[in-house]
Amino acid sequence: MDYEQIKYETRDGILTITLNRPDKLNAFTGRMLSELLDAMDRADRDDDVRAVVFTGAGRGFCAGADLSGGANTFNAENRGPIDPGLDGHRDGGGLFTLRLYESLKPTIAACNGPAVGVGITMQLAMDIRLASEAARYGFVFTRRAIVMEACSSWFLPRLVGPQQALEWVMTGRVFSAEEALNGRLVRSIHKADDLLPAAYALAREIADNTAPVSVALNRQMIWKMLGADHPMEAHKVDSKGIYSRGKSDDVKEGVTAFLEKRPARFPMKVSDGMPSYFPWWQERKFK
Amino acid sequence: MDYEQIKYETRDGILTITLNRPDKLNAFTGRMLSELLDAMDRADRDDDVRAVVFTGAGRGFCAGADLSGGANTFNAENRGPIDPGLDGHRDGGGLFTLRLYESLKPTIAACNGPAVGVGITMQLAMDIRLASEAARYGFVFTRRAIVMEACSSWFLPRLVGPQQALEWVMTGRVFSAEEALNGRLVRSIHKADDLLPAAYALAREIADNTAPVSVALNRQMIWKMLGADHPMEAHKVDSKGIYSRGKSDDVKEGVTAFLEKRPARFPMKVSDGMPSYFPWWQERKFK
Amino acid sequence: MDYEQIKYETRDGILTITLNRPDKLNAFTGRMLSELLDAMDRADRDDDVRAVVFTGAGRGFCAGADLSGGANTFNAENRGPIDPGLDGHRDGGGLFTLRLYESLKPTIAACNGPAVGVGITMQLAMDIRLASEAARYGFVFTRRAIVMEACSSWFLPRLVGPQQALEWVMTGRVFSAEEALNGRLVRSIHKADDLLPAAYALAREIADNTAPVSVALNRQMIWKMLGADHPMEAHKVDSKGIYSRGKSDDVKEGVTAFLEKRPARFPMKVSDGMPSYFPWWQERKFK
Repeated sequence: MDYEQIKYETRDGILTITLNRPDKLNAFTGRMLSELLDAMDRADRDDDVRAVVFTGAGRGFCAGADLSGGANTFNAENRGPIDPGLDGHRDGGGLFTLRLYESLKPTIAACNGPAVGVGITMQLAMDIRLASEAARYGFVFTRRAIVMEACSSWFLPRLVGPQQALEWVMTGRVFSAEEALNGRLVRSIHKADDLLPAAYALAREIADNTAPVSVALNRQMIWKMLGADHPMEAHKVDSKGIYSRGKSDDVKEGVTAFLEKRPARFPMKVSDGMPSYFPWWQERKFK
Repeated sequence: MDYEQIKYETRDGILTITLNRPDKLNAFTGRMLSELLDAMDRADRDDDVRAVVFTGAGRGFCAGADLSGGANTFNAENRGPIDPGLDGHRDGGGLFTLRLYESLKPTIAACNGPAVGVGITMQLAMDIRLASEAARYGFVFTRRAIVMEACSSWFLPRLVGPQQALEWVMTGRVFSAEEALNGRLVRSIHKADDLLPAAYALAREIADNTAPVSVALNRQMIWKMLGADHPMEAHKVDSKGIYSRGKSDDVKEGVTAFLEKRPARFPMKVSDGMPSYFPWWQERKFK
Repeated sequence: MDYEQIKYETRDGILTITLNRPDKLNAFTGRMLSELLDAMDRADRDDDVRAVVFTGAGRGFCAGADLSGGANTFNAENRGPIDPGLDGHRDGGGLFTLRLYESLKPTIAACNGPAVGVGITMQLAMDIRLASEAARYGFVFTRRAIVMEACSSWFLPRLVGPQQALEWVMTGRVFSAEEALNGRLVRSIHKADDLLPAAYALAREIADNTAPVSVALNRQMIWKMLGADHPMEAHKVDSKGIYSRGKSDDVKEGVTAFLEKRPARFPMKVSDGMPSYFPWWQERKFK
């Protein structure tokens, strides 16, 4: 697939995906969604990608849904399906956040400017969020009379607690990076020029020190267990993991390198090295 | 229903419900419970109510259960049913917090003074909590040998995390507004005279800028998804909402007003404008 | 059972369990696990134990799994079962955290130094975590290529939120007590000499003021309701508790003492005073 509305650039094991409609503040479209879904599949298949950084071209991150359709922007009966495979009755933002939720690679948001509507809700399913001082956020749904989307009603209260989630969503206000940090939406604030370097430094910390298969498994364990009703569900998966990984060449190298006080060189790859019990969950159907 | 133990006052779209037994520090009774349940129904039916602010008359918010029954205060076999419709085997505080959980209007606690036992657990199911400098809080159940109630074991760890919840509940200590803020129980602290104005300013921010039906839906989405085991459950409801709301007159006005840079005038009302898929959940039975 | 790798010391109602392999930084073994499980049973049976403080002998808390088995440390097929009752296919750390989760007594971690791998994941199931300035933490699993264990994928995001959990786990970095405090992993930091006194002061606050049966019930309510999908589940248990406890001698004493402004002397004991509806949940099976 050729990308028209995003950029896909890999360097030194880190993939940067840039939302790339700078003249529209990178407003979200059906085309952009299709490209993002394709890019996630490509990243998961590519063992040279150890982490994914998302950012926006120009002065914004993403201004939300493209409103050039005017009053009928959200009217499924007055527009074509947002994606050839969809029937217009599924929320597009949710297709992306559900795909992020299943990612095998760490995902980091480097939010360089305004992120409103789906521009911020898409970030909620990314693992870690960094903000530029120029970032602005808005869960503006109540001001347009629409509902929150992209599964944000699931992600947001788990990230910032229900009190903060309710205030931001019920007021629909646009707020600063500092308010986002105080509310624990973002992990850190950076000067504009330091934003991408900070995101890359975090990605490097992962890429340079850790085993890819272990990162993919642990990432899935945290997200999946966030919905589990009892720690026993974690114990079942932990036990499979300790048994399966414990006899792997990866772990032998990890322990040996640690004992020899040298950097580890992990032999296993995500593309063919995920354990036989993965995925341990049943895929959740839309209907 | 005539109210004896609460006040119900609406002005400019904001309802203030005042716990009104100031000589008893507004201690909670079966009568007060019945009045609060009635007031919530009335607020949900009244389209002129855009937000509800709860506060206490006099120097306290609520001192907890009225202990004038002495040693048998909590003994269901030595008192009448707390409400004509109840059999004495259901926790009264929980009836109120479960009703708050189903509210169609935003709820804000303006805690003006001591809030102990059910005085604080009732606030946990309100959307946002503000504190006066004079506020004091106590989950004092372990000091009376009773159990925590009003569904607070469900709400509290989701608001402040299990570590903070366990410390406050296991010690039963009474603590300051500042400790409450540090622990993220309350969103902000105000001088006594500034408390109600701050609560009203927040209520106004909602009332002046947002679509009532959208607020009701989003409020429910956050609370209900807090219990969902997978973001797909949000995606199902999001998709219904985007489809249903997307073709509504409310959203057409919301988008058009935004594009025309003017305040929106949303035509739809909660009393008759909730979408056909609402409620999307099955009511949870007591048994 | 005689303890070789832990110390078990009770004084004034507070049990201190010390991980006691100081020459190995208290590295975790199958033997230590068996002793910890035995100690928890003993503490629950002993009504003189009102709270449990965990700490480490020497300069560390626990360096994680004992790696003296070298590359095959985690290989279940190259070592004996970690416990006579186990088959090597269950994660040992999880057996301890699941046991902590069922504890009838409050549990407090006094983390005196490095706590890495299972050294920190075991603490996640303790109720409250205090740190010495000398504490260091590391969820180092991705650096050894293993998976996170001890049900930490369930506990950690609930304690610190998924964003912080993902960063610590995906980087595998070792971090300071200050970073742990900022991330809300620990409740407070203390100078080395003040750590145990602070833990004991917190334990005393519980032991001196509260009813043992009430503490055991409330502790379980918070942990169990953290996995419940609806506040109605709490209401069901609250209602049983208010009814059952409300007519107990414990509550009569609690209310009377409060009204008489004197310390309460609660007559009921955990060993024989837990209500008939306890436990209200079905035990979760491994398979």
